[in-house]
Amino acid sequence: MITFDDVLDANRRIADVVQQTPLLTSHALNDLSGNELYFKCENFQRVGAFKIRGAYNKISSLSADQLKRGVVAFSSGNHAQGVALAAKLLNTTAKIVMPNNSPKSKLEATRAYGAQIIMYDFLKESREKIGEKISEEEGRELVPPFNDELIMAGQGTVGLEIFDVIKRLDYVFIPVGGGGLLSGNSISLKYLMSRVKIIGVETEAANDAYQSFRKGAIVTIKPPATIADGMRTTSLGTKTFEVIKAKTDDIILVSDAEVIEAMRWIFSRLKIIVEPTAAVPFAAVLKNELKLKNKRIGIILSGGNIDMDDFFDLLKTKKHD
Amino acid sequence: MITFDDVLDANRRIADVVQQTPLLTSHALNDLSGNELYFKCENFQRVGAFKIRGAYNKISSLSADQLKRGVVAFSSGNHAQGVALAAKLLNTTAKIVMPNNSPKSKLEATRAYGAQIIMYDFLKESREKIGEKISEEEGRELVPPFNDELIMAGQGTVGLEIFDVIKRLDYVFIPVGGGGLLSGNSISLKYLMSRVKIIGVETEAANDAYQSFRKGAIVTIKPPATIADGMRTTSLGTKTFEVIKAKTDDIILVSDAEVIEAMRWIFSRLKIIVEPTAAVPFAAVLKNELKLKNKRIGIILSGGNIDMDDFFDLLKTKKHD
Repeated sequence: MITFDDVLDANRRIADVVQQTPLLTSHALNDLSGNELYFKCENFQRVGAFKIRGAYNKISSLSADQLKRGVVAFSSGNHAQGVALAAKLLNTTAKIVMPNNSPKSKLEATRAYGAQIIMYDFLKESREKIGEKISEEEGRELVPPFNDELIMAGQGTVGLEIFDVIKRLDYVFIPVGGGGLLSGNSISLKYLMSRVKIIGVETEAANDAYQSFRKGAIVTIKPPATIADGMRTTSLGTKTFEVIKAKTDDIILVSDAEVIEAMRWIFSRLKIIVEPTAAVPFAAVLKNELKLKNKRIGIILSGGNIDMDDFFDLLKTKKHD
Repeated sequence: MITFDDVLDANRRIADVVQQTPLLTSHALNDLSGNELYFKCENFQRVGAFKIRGAYNKISSLSADQLKRGVVAFSSGNHAQGVALAAKLLNTTAKIVMPNNSPKSKLEATRAYGAQIIMYDFLKESREKIGEKISEEEGRELVPPFNDELIMAGQGTVGLEIFDVIKRLDYVFIPVGGGGLLSGNSISLKYLMSRVKIIGVETEAANDAYQSFRKGAIVTIKPPATIADGMRTTSLGTKTFEVIKAKTDDIILVSDAEVIEAMRWIFSRLKIIVEPTAAVPFAAVLKNELKLKNKRIGIILSGGNIDMDDFFDLLKTKKHD
């Protein structure tokens, strides 16, 4: 299991490359929630999401020989851009396996960072197999999206930056896809803030981590239909689950409709853009199943990558003023 | 003319009340512009705009006797909310004279801060006269939107916070309506950064400050048709113009279309919401009439108060990816 030292090592590697993102507060949202909220804005991170942290930590740990052969990753989302940028910054080459139904903006962003995109037919082919084949044939190091200690430790550096600004939080709410962000920050935040409770949040359709946490064993679900595209992974990884089981206090669920309403509040009161996955933890804070009051709550806004038109379509039905 | 000491005095009064807003950077926008850009996010300020700074500085300087009688202001925009919140925080009462065509959201926000709204028919009545009448009859202190030394000094505290983060900038681009923000920050930034150039920016239709700066005397225009609603004032004030004439290096113009395109970039790359007035300086940086290259440029994003539907309507025609 990774330790706090692994997160500190990661931080030394990535410090010059990542943005120190701000921790925003809002009187209006504090009033709305009845708690004191601290929003960690990883939507302002390079590539628009926290994923650069893990990817850069992983790739910067490769040997000169490995860097010469390059890296390969499969992802339709933010991990693709994280790997592409990290590879560029470290003067190596990246091949990214992406489904042929990927949003044009994500393909273009990944290509703009200099990565070579390998398209596949998501109905017929397995991206894992394509990625592994490229890795074997070309000697490229596979950069996994979450189930890797260097990736997890890199994502855990978000917690270090939160602690730079605020020394005590009662709760931190974190979105869960494959569990990289949740596991890494369970490690860093539990080390730094002795009594903090870490809450993972998923959407109802993407409830594999919720089920796994309760069962004490990894549960795999079918590809879920949810607007939170960062949560369309079907299971946690063995390494992320090990940490989550040991360090996370609970995993709870919200509906897609609650996520959209959270995005609206984030728009109208925080004045920022987040992607659906990033709004999931705040949706849970607003739903307040845990009946929290006057608590100091950290919320990790994991990313802001959403096409303008999709964003407008999601939010256009006005629910509050 | 106000001095740097007035800004420091203002800062002492308002420090516990205002948000220290972040100074955001973006690799993507730096690449786009060819300069190093620093965005001061007053859209994250309390009431959603810098206006709380001046209003709180003004009202907190009133005597106990004046505070007992309350304040009055006229504004259809962010100044209304600034005065309403400042009055509430200082335990006094505020009457705000607002036109009967004000957006519902602005009326509601102002009312939510506890201010009493006096509606008037903007086609038939003069808000100045209504405000002055209330001031005389009720002994309420008038809180002007810009042409007041305490207001100007309060707005100038934005520059102090920029200097907290970065010690040298070559240029700072600032929107100009009545000139409170531009005059206050010309004072503070010119004091703190010896060689900095201060550029005021207006939209083409709202070019009264542009004309005044060139003529060396205040020019009054007809109420301009521009999407930048913070620039619909028809002239600078005598006090703001005195400072701008002495301390501002240039005033330049952009079109409404250029403002919308700037808002799109701010959405897609900075992941934040700004109102049209706030995007005006960045529009000028992108237009780059001054042919700047490799300069360190500060940009004051003055506010983020725009209804979601209006925002979507403005931005929905996609111009870039």
